[in-house]
Amino acid sequence: MAHMTTNDEYPSRSSDQPVIIPRKDPVWYRTDPPVEGPLSVEQLTRYDQDGYLLLEHLLSREEVEELLAELERVWASHQSSRAPEVVREPEGDAIRSIFRVHQTNPIFNRLSLDSRILGAARQLLGGDVYVHQSRINLKPGFTGKEFYWHSDFETWHVEDGMPHMRALSFSVLLDDNLPFNGSLMVMPGSHQEYVAAVGRTPKDHYKESLRRQAYGVPDQNSLTHLYRRYGLAMTTGAAGSVLMFDCNLMHGSASNITPLSRRNVFLVYNSVQNPPVAPFSGEAPRPSFAAAREAQLIVM
Amino acid sequence: MAHMTTNDEYPSRSSDQPVIIPRKDPVWYRTDPPVEGPLSVEQLTRYDQDGYLLLEHLLSREEVEELLAELERVWASHQSSRAPEVVREPEGDAIRSIFRVHQTNPIFNRLSLDSRILGAARQLLGGDVYVHQSRINLKPGFTGKEFYWHSDFETWHVEDGMPHMRALSFSVLLDDNLPFNGSLMVMPGSHQEYVAAVGRTPKDHYKESLRRQAYGVPDQNSLTHLYRRYGLAMTTGAAGSVLMFDCNLMHGSASNITPLSRRNVFLVYNSVQNPPVAPFSGEAPRPSFAAAREAQLIVM
Repeated sequence: MAHMTTNDEYPSRSSDQPVIIPRKDPVWYRTDPPVEGPLSVEQLTRYDQDGYLLLEHLLSREEVEELLAELERVWASHQSSRAPEVVREPEGDAIRSIFRVHQTNPIFNRLSLDSRILGAARQLLGGDVYVHQSRINLKPGFTGKEFYWHSDFETWHVEDGMPHMRALSFSVLLDDNLPFNGSLMVMPGSHQEYVAAVGRTPKDHYKESLRRQAYGVPDQNSLTHLYRRYGLAMTTGAAGSVLMFDCNLMHGSASNITPLSRRNVFLVYNSVQNPPVAPFSGEAPRPSFAAAREAQLIVM
Repeated sequence: MAHMTTNDEYPSRSSDQPVIIPRKDPVWYRTDPPVEGPLSVEQLTRYDQDGYLLLEHLLSREEVEELLAELERVWASHQSSRAPEVVREPEGDAIRSIFRVHQTNPIFNRLSLDSRILGAARQLLGGDVYVHQSRINLKPGFTGKEFYWHSDFETWHVEDGMPHMRALSFSVLLDDNLPFNGSLMVMPGSHQEYVAAVGRTPKDHYKESLRRQAYGVPDQNSLTHLYRRYGLAMTTGAAGSVLMFDCNLMHGSASNITPLSRRNVFLVYNSVQNPPVAPFSGEAPRPSFAAAREAQLIVM
């Protein structure tokens, strides 16, 4: 009965004025007894405060090399693919991301079940989770494009119908992320505020938005507010490190003109207590390669 | 007689194949007796090796504030200007740079004569110099565009007819240059190699090239060679610092999506021994606001 209608706790793209709404959900979903897992209380506490955590050198060099080889293999085999999972750069035909790799590829599937990652997701989200989205990304050298500031949750809420903030992302770094090759910038603590964007969502927006941002983009005043309050950090780390961050953390990245590519595997977990409902945009949901429509429990 | 014809020591944009030519000119033009000036032998030696030097906190806070106020005043007064000195962003009408400010504005003129800057130029270039180019730049927050890798000398040689590498630039930082707001990246030592670009220079190329780079751009293989040999450094520094760099240093900058603008005054000095000749492109030279056509000695 409670699920017959779902209140929109985080309205966005429904007004001409930007609004900032305080977060209404926990970041770290504490349970009693606590969910066991790889993160220490200190790490959980830091994540709770900052909205992100870098797990340095989580993967061994051998694991990185195996994942890199697989990423390159999948990349090469999709060069002329017209599958919707293959998303290309706004200018030109270069592949930007390949989605749903945790279901289509045994090596990335295994990674999505790795206890160092899945276990951390379970600890933070307070129990069972499923993969909301997975993809491999290549931000190439010389021509890597910037990715403007955004909260993932804004999109997942409006376009996918994710009702609450009970999801998080893991970026598995397969190249060194340095201050100058387009590494992710975050506003630590900004996950406590939700920036509702102005405007409406056009139909089939995802086809364009996965390539280039246009709707759901935070306004400059709100970003300036967040910056003044929380500052800015660049999340650099060696290959094999894993960056985890909350679904509502404000993040973005500059362009990459260095010769150094930045490849990663991206895994998003959502709590099984937080399954998607009808998108709050009123439009059809994005296809399941971009956002799983069912909370498929992962059996560890 | 020697100046009747000028050999092209650094041919570029004249072949379909990129070529790397070793530098044929000194970096630090040592004289006997040495030219007196503000730089120590250690600083001169470091500049000679790296091709750049950051003079931290060269200007006081009061000086920075005066220059900033003047920059903002000039900026505001040129909003609707159609003068060719006012160069706008490739997309939209926002001003990117205003040129020739050392001649049109008393405060920037005084800066171009400041012994801390002019004296350093004289020391490195071995005597009398003149201003080849001056401009004020604003790399705005949120929307600052990347500036791809280039050697200034390649353009000054091909499009302005500067025969030899005997010039250098000063970027007077009026905002903090941080790792994440589009600060200049350099390849230290790369000033020892000249990357000849492929293709030809179109007529009136400058109108477009000051806004957006297209010709004279180094190829990816040459950049990868330079990167492997010299690595990469980001030139961060507090407002009031001055970055000086050789005319042939490979440099570029990423986009700036942070709320922090990056404003600076840019001054280029050339030796009076190195006056411009007819451009090696065979085309008409760029107008004098972008590149002085006469070596006008500065009397200190």
